[in-house]
Amino acid sequence: MIQIRPIVFTLGVVLCAIAATMLLPSIVDLLDGRESWTVFAASSALTMFIGGLMLLVAYDERPMKTGLKEGFVLTTFSWVLVAAFSAIPFIGLGLPVADAFFESMSGLTTTGATVLIKLDDLPRGILLWRSLLQGLGGLGIVVTALIVLPFLRVGGMQLFQTESSDRSEKVLPRALELVSATAGIYVALMLVCIALYMMFGMSPFDAICHALTTVATAGFSTHDQSFGFFPSPWLQWICIIFMILGSLPFVVFIRMVRGEPSALWHDEQVRGFCLFLVLVCLGTTLWLNSIRNDVTFFDSLRIATFNVTSIVTTTGYATEDYSAWGTTSMGLFFLLMFIGGCSGSTSGGIKIYRFQVARMLTRSHFLHLMSPNRVVTLIYNRRRLPADVPFSVVAFLAIYMTTVGVFTMILAAIGLDLVTSLSAAAAAVGNVGPGLGEIVGPSGNYSSLPETAKWVLSFAMLLGRLELFTVLVLLRPEFWRG
Amino acid sequence: MIQIRPIVFTLGVVLCAIAATMLLPSIVDLLDGRESWTVFAASSALTMFIGGLMLLVAYDERPMKTGLKEGFVLTTFSWVLVAAFSAIPFIGLGLPVADAFFESMSGLTTTGATVLIKLDDLPRGILLWRSLLQGLGGLGIVVTALIVLPFLRVGGMQLFQTESSDRSEKVLPRALELVSATAGIYVALMLVCIALYMMFGMSPFDAICHALTTVATAGFSTHDQSFGFFPSPWLQWICIIFMILGSLPFVVFIRMVRGEPSALWHDEQVRGFCLFLVLVCLGTTLWLNSIRNDVTFFDSLRIATFNVTSIVTTTGYATEDYSAWGTTSMGLFFLLMFIGGCSGSTSGGIKIYRFQVARMLTRSHFLHLMSPNRVVTLIYNRRRLPADVPFSVVAFLAIYMTTVGVFTMILAAIGLDLVTSLSAAAAAVGNVGPGLGEIVGPSGNYSSLPETAKWVLSFAMLLGRLELFTVLVLLRPEFWRG
Repeated sequence: MIQIRPIVFTLGVVLCAIAATMLLPSIVDLLDGRESWTVFAASSALTMFIGGLMLLVAYDERPMKTGLKEGFVLTTFSWVLVAAFSAIPFIGLGLPVADAFFESMSGLTTTGATVLIKLDDLPRGILLWRSLLQGLGGLGIVVTALIVLPFLRVGGMQLFQTESSDRSEKVLPRALELVSATAGIYVALMLVCIALYMMFGMSPFDAICHALTTVATAGFSTHDQSFGFFPSPWLQWICIIFMILGSLPFVVFIRMVRGEPSALWHDEQVRGFCLFLVLVCLGTTLWLNSIRNDVTFFDSLRIATFNVTSIVTTTGYATEDYSAWGTTSMGLFFLLMFIGGCSGSTSGGIKIYRFQVARMLTRSHFLHLMSPNRVVTLIYNRRRLPADVPFSVVAFLAIYMTTVGVFTMILAAIGLDLVTSLSAAAAAVGNVGPGLGEIVGPSGNYSSLPETAKWVLSFAMLLGRLELFTVLVLLRPEFWRG
Repeated sequence: MIQIRPIVFTLGVVLCAIAATMLLPSIVDLLDGRESWTVFAASSALTMFIGGLMLLVAYDERPMKTGLKEGFVLTTFSWVLVAAFSAIPFIGLGLPVADAFFESMSGLTTTGATVLIKLDDLPRGILLWRSLLQGLGGLGIVVTALIVLPFLRVGGMQLFQTESSDRSEKVLPRALELVSATAGIYVALMLVCIALYMMFGMSPFDAICHALTTVATAGFSTHDQSFGFFPSPWLQWICIIFMILGSLPFVVFIRMVRGEPSALWHDEQVRGFCLFLVLVCLGTTLWLNSIRNDVTFFDSLRIATFNVTSIVTTTGYATEDYSAWGTTSMGLFFLLMFIGGCSGSTSGGIKIYRFQVARMLTRSHFLHLMSPNRVVTLIYNRRRLPADVPFSVVAFLAIYMTTVGVFTMILAAIGLDLVTSLSAAAAAVGNVGPGLGEIVGPSGNYSSLPETAKWVLSFAMLLGRLELFTVLVLLRPEFWRG
């Protein structure tokens, strides 16, 4: 039997935190003299009421035991419930329910696909709320990837088991310690990012909003032109650095702070990610430089690096419409949507360690085909690969591709063209944000999509954010049987 | 060290067989009084000369020992060499080298993508040659899948190991027996198909050519309109039946003939394939019937069944341009390109057993996620799944998707649009034939593609036909080291 009480209690805690966060945009709008402050205040009160009720109902002095099944239910339900309550302010401001939920889910999953237009004219409260959602979502996924997912063993995440993922008695204090260390580093990165953005010309409000969505590799902007609104090359380079920092494993930052500064470069995933990014950025730069005569080499370098980094880290800011660069770049950016950053970061996608493990497995599989009796020891990050990781990782890859295929099919059935369907599906499952083509591409907007497509894509974002299996396992009838 | 002698000897035998086959179109053109008979005669002489030379050089009375590596080299080289020599007549008739090799590889791999236009005006010799290539290619792949691939253990094919795949002393007689039984059934199916085609109105020549390309699930036609040239509903239903027969495992036919008539229905793969096909055909019929008022229900049934069966069996005949039915059908037919028939048949694609194994693995993986200590026994076709099959199958799925992705990217880089790139890549790797869109779709033609794209697609067909790993393993440097 699944234990309901601890689930309800934890969800109550999460909702109260969200309710408290809603007060920030309310204060901003109140100071700006915008009517919309009441919407946030009312949303906060409602959320706090429901959250508090859940706490009261589920509170019990006996210690709470949670197992695997509770872990799956709690993780998925947290994201769905928080997305639902976070949508209330959007509904209060006049968005249809499907649009509000889409925007909220897109924010919380750090996807960054938006249905809002004329951002520059909106009250600052709503812009701040979107950025806060992404900031919270980013922190939420780092903590989930650090504490919960390795314990659920989804998609090879058992590779990243720390002591805190064990189910021993000392779990709670150790987990709390990890969470606070992560949160500390996350906030520190944001503060530095805000300071640098302001130093190079952003307004304090823009700096705060963009720092929240940069470090969370999320991609909401306060302007319709996205990051293209800021012509300063410096701002773009700062953004590139912080998108990359947001895509690195936060557990490595913790080790660096605790007196192991070489941890970053010794991590196989970090090395692979950086090497990949440098190669793709350089290649794209050279290619862009060869086809465009209107920009200098350094501009090509910046434009290519910004847009490639934005997609690979699954942020989704744009400075230009790269889908207008021709079919080669369409194909390139489509493939890049699948990559993602490191595990235990804020980025989405398949993630680097899975490609590294898959590459190792491919090699050993070929060796096995050539000489079946040869024994190959698989070493990842200086540790022996746990026995169930190979299958988990390859199954994840196959399910990932299948998921994108199924969503493409559903979107095509709704009536979208093939490029829009395929790229929107890949961009949603990968939590990237912009797809390809005129409708959902970097210079497009998701607002014109049919309502059903918005619900479908919201679900796709949730699936991708929680590494597919965490959600899919709940759809199996066996899960709910004794 | 790889043994060169047995490889050269076997390739010599294969070339001599091809040379003999080239005499058939030569005779037809001679009887028709077409000059082109000399092209076939000369091609035959050249091929026979090279093949004979290889036999002479490599002949040795000592028994020949072949191992795994020889198996990989021989399989891949056979297909490449036969495709190269089979292209000679096309070159002799004036096609550019890239086009000739594409047409030849497309025939031999039973893909059915063509670069020839105005088929109806061509000499009958060349039309017969295209059909013969597909007939030979179909038999070739059934025999390869029965005898060679299980022994090479590629992509889970070890599931289909018979005694003949063992490396015992009795291999050769048993293998020869299997090959002749397969060839007997193959020829018998063709003869029945020819008779039925003629009975319902095809000319003897058309009946022979189409029977060769139907049972081989290959898809070359003697008319530009493909199977749409024959308006008779009866011919289309006969074609449907023989495309399905060509997609069933031939080893099951052998068991039926040897006094086990229920073998067909007891085979899990056959049941899964038939069930899948019935469901998709019915669904497409109902949907087609709902959007088109110009056809009766029975016409919808026939049109939907013909085109769905043609794609799922990877034949690639068309009676209509289904890509004009709207985005839903574009999406549907795109996904169907990946399915394929049963293993050990003439069809391409991923193949049903891999989906069945993947479904079983998905279920057990979810059970494992829910309760890690539970032990699940995997049974396929009333036998315990061999230990290395799960990883082989899932790795195949991941590599298959990656391969399609990489070819899409290459074609996009050559300058094709995304729908053409993606569907041509999927149609080539799956050995289907027609893709989607105006250029490579069912009413299009591959002739207008750039030359590089033709070479790339020829390689994609080879990869798909030999279950990817057979070819890819040769590209590993480790393979050629001691």
